[in-house]
Amino acid sequence: MADLTTLGRAELEETLRALRERYQEYASKGLALDMTRGKPSSAQLDLSLALLELPGRSDYRTVDGVDCRNYGVMEGIPEARALFGQYLELAPEQVIVGGNSSLTLMHDAIVRALLHGVPDGDGAWSKQPATRFLCPSPGYDRHFAICEEFGIGMIAVDMNEHGPDMDQVERLAAGDPSIKGIWCVPRYSNPTGVTYSRDTVERLAGMRTAASDFRILWDNAYAVHHLTDDPEPLAHILRACEAAGHPNRALLFASTSKITLAGAGLAAMGASPENIEDAKRHLAKQIIGPDKVNQLRHVRMFRSLDDIRAHMRRHASLVRPKFDAVLEVFERELGGKNVAAWSRPKGGYFVSLDSMDGCAKEVVGLAADAGVKLTQAGATFPYGRDPRNRNIRIAPTFPDLEDIEIAMQVVAVCVQIAGVRKLLG
Amino acid sequence: MADLTTLGRAELEETLRALRERYQEYASKGLALDMTRGKPSSAQLDLSLALLELPGRSDYRTVDGVDCRNYGVMEGIPEARALFGQYLELAPEQVIVGGNSSLTLMHDAIVRALLHGVPDGDGAWSKQPATRFLCPSPGYDRHFAICEEFGIGMIAVDMNEHGPDMDQVERLAAGDPSIKGIWCVPRYSNPTGVTYSRDTVERLAGMRTAASDFRILWDNAYAVHHLTDDPEPLAHILRACEAAGHPNRALLFASTSKITLAGAGLAAMGASPENIEDAKRHLAKQIIGPDKVNQLRHVRMFRSLDDIRAHMRRHASLVRPKFDAVLEVFERELGGKNVAAWSRPKGGYFVSLDSMDGCAKEVVGLAADAGVKLTQAGATFPYGRDPRNRNIRIAPTFPDLEDIEIAMQVVAVCVQIAGVRKLLG
Repeated sequence: MADLTTLGRAELEETLRALRERYQEYASKGLALDMTRGKPSSAQLDLSLALLELPGRSDYRTVDGVDCRNYGVMEGIPEARALFGQYLELAPEQVIVGGNSSLTLMHDAIVRALLHGVPDGDGAWSKQPATRFLCPSPGYDRHFAICEEFGIGMIAVDMNEHGPDMDQVERLAAGDPSIKGIWCVPRYSNPTGVTYSRDTVERLAGMRTAASDFRILWDNAYAVHHLTDDPEPLAHILRACEAAGHPNRALLFASTSKITLAGAGLAAMGASPENIEDAKRHLAKQIIGPDKVNQLRHVRMFRSLDDIRAHMRRHASLVRPKFDAVLEVFERELGGKNVAAWSRPKGGYFVSLDSMDGCAKEVVGLAADAGVKLTQAGATFPYGRDPRNRNIRIAPTFPDLEDIEIAMQVVAVCVQIAGVRKLLG
Repeated sequence: MADLTTLGRAELEETLRALRERYQEYASKGLALDMTRGKPSSAQLDLSLALLELPGRSDYRTVDGVDCRNYGVMEGIPEARALFGQYLELAPEQVIVGGNSSLTLMHDAIVRALLHGVPDGDGAWSKQPATRFLCPSPGYDRHFAICEEFGIGMIAVDMNEHGPDMDQVERLAAGDPSIKGIWCVPRYSNPTGVTYSRDTVERLAGMRTAASDFRILWDNAYAVHHLTDDPEPLAHILRACEAAGHPNRALLFASTSKITLAGAGLAAMGASPENIEDAKRHLAKQIIGPDKVNQLRHVRMFRSLDDIRAHMRRHASLVRPKFDAVLEVFERELGGKNVAAWSRPKGGYFVSLDSMDGCAKEVVGLAADAGVKLTQAGATFPYGRDPRNRNIRIAPTFPDLEDIEIAMQVVAVCVQIAGVRKLLG
């Protein structure tokens, strides 16, 4: 394909005319395609239909005889803590298994820090002059929304192919005691697909922070959500923190939302014994116990991490063709044209597409007008502001394969239109 | 029975000797009975065994076609909102159905008020010099624990047979703008069993409050938990608030914890449209959606409020004999002796026992030493301090009938021992 940035004005105008014709063709089809959110498809959810009839009328006791139907067991049933212990590579005692939402666990961890403070700190964050967080960007919009909700200042940090730009992170964390933490999606990062390198993990764990109670919110949402058979290794943040003398620095989060049922899974937090004790002390005021029956359903379905891994291979076989379709269309339509770049993720739920600088909003608007709904441009950045106005998050898991192909063709045409218009000035 | 307070010293000493003999007899039995918490019994939980295999593999869509297995529907599925709407006598739009814990809904409502404020207010409660709550006492220890958790000052208000002493409530609420709310268990109040009178409800709704954003936390935990066939009516707090021009004053809470499964039920909040909007705006940052599959299970089990009422009659037939046993033992052992008073509840989960002033801790200690565990004396008061040291909460639902009978005999003996020792000076 021709590099569009090398074309002369007349060739660009001719290209734009052709692109507009194609665009009109799509626009006239009355499409209504939604590529906005990272939701599992119906076929993926079907993999967990067994949960809808588990545990069965006679199965309601834990391994230690507790009746899951009744109150109590605030930290989760032993079997579920053991399973998430395997998942998070932590002792069961370092795991709290909660309800259906890891977002809630993260939100509530921030609330506890705001209202009470955390171990190693000087009391409630909300009583301090300012609280700020480092936000590797593009990143997960719901993380950023929690900061915005509580007036926690967000400082965007660039993402590179190894994770957050650690030179920026180290400089900022060391220089400003109001910087209390960092959001991380360490594997198949949302949306870039990057898995943090060992060096990144070790620098996060070991860096000097001006705040004594700095926290890494380690949202390992895609820990086992591989698209390939040879997943890249991810170093263990909590062990790295321990080794570096910062055992309380990392809070780990995981859920089965994209393993079993997105709306009815389990979420868990893993952390140092001191952080777990601190969380439990406050949690005791918020809940008598999580839904233990749903925990039982999950441990009946998955006896071990191996069962989860086998289950995730079934997910991958459903999801991989959709990612392949996105990448094929992008390669075919945009390859070599120098107006876009995109990720080729080895797992997770997103493809991250960068248009030319300054073009993302136009692309999303054009696509919407042609019936293809994309995540709002800027959504992957703090305050919804992408400084280069180029990043677009593509979520291919939910729609049908043929919808994805059409939607991506529309997007590719829109990216070129916006790019050519920019080149035309 | 003889009124012990009329006995002479010699008779009291003789009585005490006899009581001590009986006590030693019980103490030598090696009892291990627990009357501490209001938990449903296994037989009660068996009434809802159907939930353990619902909804079934092919049943996962709401009435409007939403796949309950996937993300979303933050405010709860329409069927569940409609059912709780009937339950709370509110339009479905005025109801949010959440996870398994109404305690969490109450806790989180307080957190939102602390960090953001509420409609009609002047911003975050945590930014104001002080926040205090009225606490009708004896009351529910977990309500008080939430206040203590957040440094919300608690002002105890007496309970009488119509609800909180409204003269005290009105005087306090009108006089102090730092008083931001009141905890209420309006039906079969925990632990006194009182149902608020119409007059009480209307005075709560209509009273002048110095705080413009005063909130009634209306924990209607026992709304349908009757022990008789002719339940006393309870006036509708939210309609009373609306009529009095304070539509945002009341937040209503309910759960199925003591209807279906204590650990795996549903909880709901009902409120004015403005309060619901406010809650949803913040909730959107905390969770993508509640466990909709569990909501579906519940609406499959209960098609209407009538189904719930029929189900509660089955609960009553299991629970009533246990309450009767408690009351029979108290009547037989303590009747006419003038050393104790107790409630005769028409519903709910507790019998409230008052020893002579200054004796509750001794009674609880004596009972514990004889193998009968009671809720800690003072637990039903703010900061765990019963100013008259007399109230003891009895929770008869969980243990077996014969355990209850023995436990109550032990308690009755302990109450008399403590009473006689007090009379002996």
